[in-house]
Amino acid sequence: MSLLVVGSVAFDAIETPFGKTDKIIGGAATYISLSSSYFTKKVNLVAVVGEDFPASDIQLLESHGVNTEGLQIKKGEKSFFWSGRYHNDMNTRDTLVTELNVLGTFDPIVPEAYQNCDYLMLGNLSPKVQSTVIGRLKKRPKLVVMDTMNFWMDIAMADLNETLTMVDVLSINDEEARQLSKEYSLVKAAKKIMEMGPKYLIIKKGEHGALLFHKNQVFFAPALPLEEVFDPTGAGDTFAGGFIGYLASTNDISFDNMKRAIIYGSAMASFCVEKFGTERIVNLSEKELRARVKQFVDLVQFEVTI
Amino acid sequence: MSLLVVGSVAFDAIETPFGKTDKIIGGAATYISLSSSYFTKKVNLVAVVGEDFPASDIQLLESHGVNTEGLQIKKGEKSFFWSGRYHNDMNTRDTLVTELNVLGTFDPIVPEAYQNCDYLMLGNLSPKVQSTVIGRLKKRPKLVVMDTMNFWMDIAMADLNETLTMVDVLSINDEEARQLSKEYSLVKAAKKIMEMGPKYLIIKKGEHGALLFHKNQVFFAPALPLEEVFDPTGAGDTFAGGFIGYLASTNDISFDNMKRAIIYGSAMASFCVEKFGTERIVNLSEKELRARVKQFVDLVQFEVTI
Repeated sequence: MSLLVVGSVAFDAIETPFGKTDKIIGGAATYISLSSSYFTKKVNLVAVVGEDFPASDIQLLESHGVNTEGLQIKKGEKSFFWSGRYHNDMNTRDTLVTELNVLGTFDPIVPEAYQNCDYLMLGNLSPKVQSTVIGRLKKRPKLVVMDTMNFWMDIAMADLNETLTMVDVLSINDEEARQLSKEYSLVKAAKKIMEMGPKYLIIKKGEHGALLFHKNQVFFAPALPLEEVFDPTGAGDTFAGGFIGYLASTNDISFDNMKRAIIYGSAMASFCVEKFGTERIVNLSEKELRARVKQFVDLVQFEVTI
Repeated sequence: MSLLVVGSVAFDAIETPFGKTDKIIGGAATYISLSSSYFTKKVNLVAVVGEDFPASDIQLLESHGVNTEGLQIKKGEKSFFWSGRYHNDMNTRDTLVTELNVLGTFDPIVPEAYQNCDYLMLGNLSPKVQSTVIGRLKKRPKLVVMDTMNFWMDIAMADLNETLTMVDVLSINDEEARQLSKEYSLVKAAKKIMEMGPKYLIIKKGEHGALLFHKNQVFFAPALPLEEVFDPTGAGDTFAGGFIGYLASTNDISFDNMKRAIIYGSAMASFCVEKFGTERIVNLSEKELRARVKQFVDLVQFEVTI
């Protein structure tokens, strides 16, 4: 089924203990689109870049089957740019530069050909832009997933509260879940957040895996224990892309299928962190992906007679 | 099969954000023995207490089928005492008091009736005492599991190195694994530690679950997401008790059975943290335990066609 992805397409410059990059392609929608493209070829992108954005990077997306009709290119303007430096433990980072540029005035225009999409993934953006997209769809998608971050909780909580009532699945990290709910226990946090709108909540815990909550059900997927995390940038978005891509390809939003989607998302994220930026996820084979999912099966599956 | 448990039996005084206790029964061997008693009734305890230790607490152990013939009671001396205060996040704590008392001169005498034990669990103690126990067994047990802590890495590394060569399974937490291996990545840490002696390594990550390593195999069990962690004291020992108790009761040390043992240990630990000290694990029903293991199945199991 068709998938609409909205979010940032941008430049990142990344420093980790393993090295640093020049400006490379980044942005939530980039990672989401690339990751979901391994599951469905009907990925429609809505985003904005400046004149400085290389045609080769747009071609990269298109070569993965991503429809870039909805990618606005603003003449005379510059693309969103983020630069960050990771600490030794890779769990914390300092933002060195944030230049909003074209993202500051982003009007998410949905091309006519994108209408009637079945699945909608709202990457991290201002909650106002996210709700605008939902408002512009003539038919509500079967499933709306949104990602957000603490930044919007700090400066746009009213907008965020409204957008939360419009989505089915919210994806945030553990600290954001605590901030949003004012609860330390993630179980309590999940209950409160699901009362704010989303019927499903994904709490990402980085190297400690991810939790999926729905009513009284809970599912946990670990992160794959890796010898080395090279660069965590985009891991959460790659996870989200695998999650929604798998759901769109199977067109099954049962809780059991969401479990599988979480595993596929986790598998995609485990690739992402192995190299800088998108490097590892632009050239995956189906065989590699299958082998990685098998690793997750071996990692957590056990047989017990109760 | 018979299980020999060696470790501290002690008094604890605990403060958490939920309240505080007077001196209550604690100690690694207490938690290990109680927890393993839900799986096997052949639990033989070697430990030492002072004259101040109440007969009622010894009866508590005996009522769970724990053989206390090897529990030395030192006339005119006092039991080991530990007091600690947990911070709000329950992941960190301050030690307020440590009084070694009888533990300072503990000579682990193994009663004749304990010889030929099939499984040996060495709770956290000085590595010298741990290796002494192994040396005093006429027949090597089928499986030797040891727990230790950063304290011994700081002050008795040579002894610890020697004891590590004598055991099959080492159980430590993530920070201890990093300290012992000088590696941040737990995968790299596990490889190094398994070269130091143990064929199996359990890395406990508290609320983030536990990892079991063996050669190139790895298994992960999450901690159960709980509304509230009331008191984490003894959770690691309760986990170890469930692990070795399950192995002893099934007498199967295949990797697949160790996975199940990790799940049973995790289930026992999830009970332990629900109340102060041993309160929750002294009165569990088989039905409760079965239901808890079922929660772990629901939490992590998924079906996928690869």
